Amino acid sequence: MICPGEKDLLEKIIKENDIKKIPESEWNGLATEIRDYILEHVSKTGGHLAPNLGVVELTMALHLFMDFPKDKLVFDVGHQCYTHKILTGRKEEFDTLRQYKGLSGFPKRDESPCDSFDSGHSSNSISVALGYAAARSLNKTDEKIVALIGDGAMTGGVAYEALNNASLVNGNFIIVLNDNQMSISESIGGFSSQLSRLRTGKLYTHLKQSVTDSLERIPGIGDSMVRLIRKTKDGLKQIMVPGMFFEEMGITYLGPVDGHNIKGMLRVFENAAKVNGPVLVHVVTKKGKGYKYAEKHPDKFHGIGPFNLSDGQTKKGGVSYTEVFSKAMLGAGEKNENVVAITAAMSDGTGLKRFKKEFPTRFFDVGIAEQHAVSFSAGLALSGKIPVFAVYSSFLQRGFDEIVQDICMQDQHVVFAIDRAGLVGNDGPTHHGAFDVSYLSMIPNMTLMAPKNDKELTQMVDYAINVHNGPIAVRYPRGEAYLGLQEYNQEIKYGKSEVIHDGEKVCLIAYGATVKNAEAAFECLSDKGIVPGLVNLRFAKPLDEEMLDRIADEYEAVITLEDHVLKGGVGAMIDEYYCKKGIRIKVKNLGISDKFVEQGATSKLYEDCGLNTDSIVKTVEEVVNNL
Amino acid sequence: MICPGEKDLLEKIIKENDIKKIPESEWNGLATEIRDYILEHVSKTGGHLAPNLGVVELTMALHLFMDFPKDKLVFDVGHQCYTHKILTGRKEEFDTLRQYKGLSGFPKRDESPCDSFDSGHSSNSISVALGYAAARSLNKTDEKIVALIGDGAMTGGVAYEALNNASLVNGNFIIVLNDNQMSISESIGGFSSQLSRLRTGKLYTHLKQSVTDSLERIPGIGDSMVRLIRKTKDGLKQIMVPGMFFEEMGITYLGPVDGHNIKGMLRVFENAAKVNGPVLVHVVTKKGKGYKYAEKHPDKFHGIGPFNLSDGQTKKGGVSYTEVFSKAMLGAGEKNENVVAITAAMSDGTGLKRFKKEFPTRFFDVGIAEQHAVSFSAGLALSGKIPVFAVYSSFLQRGFDEIVQDICMQDQHVVFAIDRAGLVGNDGPTHHGAFDVSYLSMIPNMTLMAPKNDKELTQMVDYAINVHNGPIAVRYPRGEAYLGLQEYNQEIKYGKSEVIHDGEKVCLIAYGATVKNAEAAFECLSDKGIVPGLVNLRFAKPLDEEMLDRIADEYEAVITLEDHVLKGGVGAMIDEYYCKKGIRIKVKNLGISDKFVEQGATSKLYEDCGLNTDSIVKTVEEVVNNL
Repeated sequence: MICPGEKDLLEKIIKENDIKKIPESEWNGLATEIRDYILEHVSKTGGHLAPNLGVVELTMALHLFMDFPKDKLVFDVGHQCYTHKILTGRKEEFDTLRQYKGLSGFPKRDESPCDSFDSGHSSNSISVALGYAAARSLNKTDEKIVALIGDGAMTGGVAYEALNNASLVNGNFIIVLNDNQMSISESIGGFSSQLSRLRTGKLYTHLKQSVTDSLERIPGIGDSMVRLIRKTKDGLKQIMVPGMFFEEMGITYLGPVDGHNIKGMLRVFENAAKVNGPVLVHVVTKKGKGYKYAEKHPDKFHGIGPFNLSDGQTKKGGVSYTEVFSKAMLGAGEKNENVVAITAAMSDGTGLKRFKKEFPTRFFDVGIAEQHAVSFSAGLALSGKIPVFAVYSSFLQRGFDEIVQDICMQDQHVVFAIDRAGLVGNDGPTHHGAFDVSYLSMIPNMTLMAPKNDKELTQMVDYAINVHNGPIAVRYPRGEAYLGLQEYNQEIKYGKSEVIHDGEKVCLIAYGATVKNAEAAFECLSDKGIVPGLVNLRFAKPLDEEMLDRIADEYEAVITLEDHVLKGGVGAMIDEYYCKKGIRIKVKNLGISDKFVEQGATSKLYEDCGLNTDSIVKTVEEVVNNL
Repeated sequence: MICPGEKDLLEKIIKENDIKKIPESEWNGLATEIRDYILEHVSKTGGHLAPNLGVVELTMALHLFMDFPKDKLVFDVGHQCYTHKILTGRKEEFDTLRQYKGLSGFPKRDESPCDSFDSGHSSNSISVALGYAAARSLNKTDEKIVALIGDGAMTGGVAYEALNNASLVNGNFIIVLNDNQMSISESIGGFSSQLSRLRTGKLYTHLKQSVTDSLERIPGIGDSMVRLIRKTKDGLKQIMVPGMFFEEMGITYLGPVDGHNIKGMLRVFENAAKVNGPVLVHVVTKKGKGYKYAEKHPDKFHGIGPFNLSDGQTKKGGVSYTEVFSKAMLGAGEKNENVVAITAAMSDGTGLKRFKKEFPTRFFDVGIAEQHAVSFSAGLALSGKIPVFAVYSSFLQRGFDEIVQDICMQDQHVVFAIDRAGLVGNDGPTHHGAFDVSYLSMIPNMTLMAPKNDKELTQMVDYAINVHNGPIAVRYPRGEAYLGLQEYNQEIKYGKSEVIHDGEKVCLIAYGATVKNAEAAFECLSDKGIVPGLVNLRFAKPLDEEMLDRIADEYEAVITLEDHVLKGGVGAMIDEYYCKKGIRIKVKNLGISDKFVEQGATSKLYEDCGLNTDSIVKTVEEVVNNL
């Protein structure tokens, strides 16, 4: 299958719609070439491999069916867009995939008019496509509109909100459900078992049992109905197969269709286009298709760094913050039996897999459903449990209202373990965790922490669970944990910072991951004879005002550092404090300016934000020189 | 029906579970007394009348079925809890309903152990109840757990996320679907039509048509299936009635049940309790039941101020900001045919009803689905429409992630018309719009405005739609529009404030609704010989830095005013600016401190926050005296 070399068919695909010139007999050959092309490139650049291998034929069928850029294809999440990019003139840019200033791993309208939406987060594609459809009615145009959404994304509430609105749209509207039986790991819950029944035709059995069970419980009428059902079961068996769930929402259901049979899919898409209204085409694909390691371990190959094509092996890096958290949670689970862990379809990514294995009854994977995860945690906390919701920073945004209303307003002891906080690198703007300090610090009763290194994360997880009582969050970045400053491990005290170095003239106040570069800058500056102070802030909320007062007494200037937007961030809060108190001290805030940060290696992005060691050194020198 | 006077049965209800002593023959009599009691009190205090009149018998049946406080009843939204409060020892406090320091209009754990959750926002009850249920398994206890949710709330995504997780719970779990065929106005979308089919038994017709239609489109196998269906239709007609939507999610469906037949409901609840797993009881109620004006106009009587019991008439107040917006939107719709309006089940509350009437094809009510509303707006904007999403401040929190990802990251021209911004009064903490400036100002590309009076709101709506290009929000409070300062109506310019008065020593910088009290304070102070400056900020983002520089030159102190939390608000941003720029000026920030604000008349709450005229006067005097 993997045979780098000739790509005769792919060479004919220069721009959008060129695929239509490829004869039907060559479609499978082209699929193989595309798959090989993706494998060759992603093994070098890293990327979302398994999802893309799964949708090669599906994307080809859509491209045979649609006319780009006139027609609108809205990708859900968007990391499965590689074939789409290859088919729309971006093949040659695949060497730069996910690199700084390179091709995005997600659809981007800036790259091509064939991309109709800059996707990134899950479950919103149907809503966006419905917006396109509503506008089509008003504009009296006739473009095809297709939302492509995975079965995992279907567990997100916004997808359901959109399904509920689908029947209000005029004209044809196609939802392609890419059912690979996975979200990122396995899909969760009632919706997923339903799809599985559709796939396997087991619906009838389930139906018979649950419907007749419940009918029998209805006094009076139940029995006769049950008899009726038994009588008609042969008819039922077949009528039940098409997706009643969707039909009940007013959406025509077509499927299931083999997602690796291009001709079959094309025929169904063409039939779907004839429906005057919303129609869902249920396509069954295999995640990782065509690369045995990805087929076998679709979660490992979901999003992956560079790997060895011949054996699927990746380079092992150092210990990640996720692993440190994972271990800390194991310890917490052993120490306190009230600790329960929640994930929104990220048991692997958040490091909760070990907790799940050790404490299966105290672990909850709720699917891609951050809102539910938060409110569910509220219910658990109200019953004396200590829920730890481990979640990526940018995905927690989905649960914002529930954090305000259900956790903080009721002052519940729920721990938010915020992974992927700060700049995540190659996934780019939709995935950077750049906002959590701002949107959480404004909420009354919330406490916010971030550790400087591996050991402090462990301390903070313990503090959050066993010492604190109330809503509390600890944020930590993607990637390798900082192992420096091990000797600085004062006990965590509520709202208290930690002095790393006393110094003179200027003091660096660093939050979380930025302590690492601040320390490196300190070392570098010391060599040059400049000795700044360095404080590890630890708590963004509440601020350590005593420390801030002391710093203002002892230094002439303060430089704040955070891997977070400056708007509403730690620096802004410190500035506000000084201004309000009438304390006159020179301040300089380092962090992310008021814009969305692009993709690229985090080292490069840190440099752009002035947060790398060299920039910090330069800033300190400038500040010192201008005192 | 309405006969104030003797309440013999109600007198026997002193505390929780007392209802169980009332003989079955008296249940209907008690229901009548409760209904009259609610009417008598709510006509004086105002409150959520129609929802409460609709659930008197349902709540009684639940109280006959459950054992309080052991069992857990989680109200969705919660404004339908009056009968529950009457049945749990809070009858005598109804004179203080929704008043300052009085009985809350929502469930509150602080008031009674019979309240299991402080509800307020929609659609999260099932999630919270599932948290309770998961904890029950771990705690090995046996309390009943019931979520009570309306059909309107079922359109919210988090409800679906929870339904999807319901089948994962161990033991019995009851969802009571209170189906009154309304959210606040009519319910919307596929889910709603589905319930309506369940109610009326029309499902079969729909099913036959849509399923056979779609089957016929499946090449090869469709025809024979259609023949099969036709053959089995008599059996189908009946088997299809029970809610397949829920059964497909792994939830046993029981119903529909008459929500005004206590005995009937009780029997079904008792049957439901025998199910080992999640079960949904579909209860059909009539909103406003028992009060003819409320039955006829359930939306008007959904949430209402004091009214005349005999004729249902309310006191007409002055022109509200909502009405000003409503009119402005009509004008905008006429002026620009690309303007489209979106509401999340609040066409009346947001004032969009008129736009809907005038431009029906350009109006979209998406149900209680703020996330969808935002992403749907993105799709519309991408097609050249100018979507105006009119929404209450605290409900917009639900769409936070989509605002970041789908609107601001893609720099789409979507207008957020944020009603109920600031302190809303009697609805209390769950409904105050106290956070929007903080959670929106941190997002790149966002522009934020607030008008001082009616005329400026009209100007800003026009500016947002016809002048600006990009994400923009205008916030305005609940209640009467300020009609003062009509002569100050400079053209709106991006990021520019408006000077109302030049003054000396101290300058007031007021945002939005606070200009009114600042002006009154100015008048009062002038009489005392103190002449502060007064600036109408207009834009919270971007800040008018030129103005801030000038103020710092001309005055010795600045007092900022906002009806919003201070954390991340306008005052904080101004402090940050001054500190960062090294500008030395005394500042004082007035606004909401870092806590949730209770319920009460807004005038009283303004006083508590130091934002009423007297407090402002006092603050100015203090600041001046300490210069």
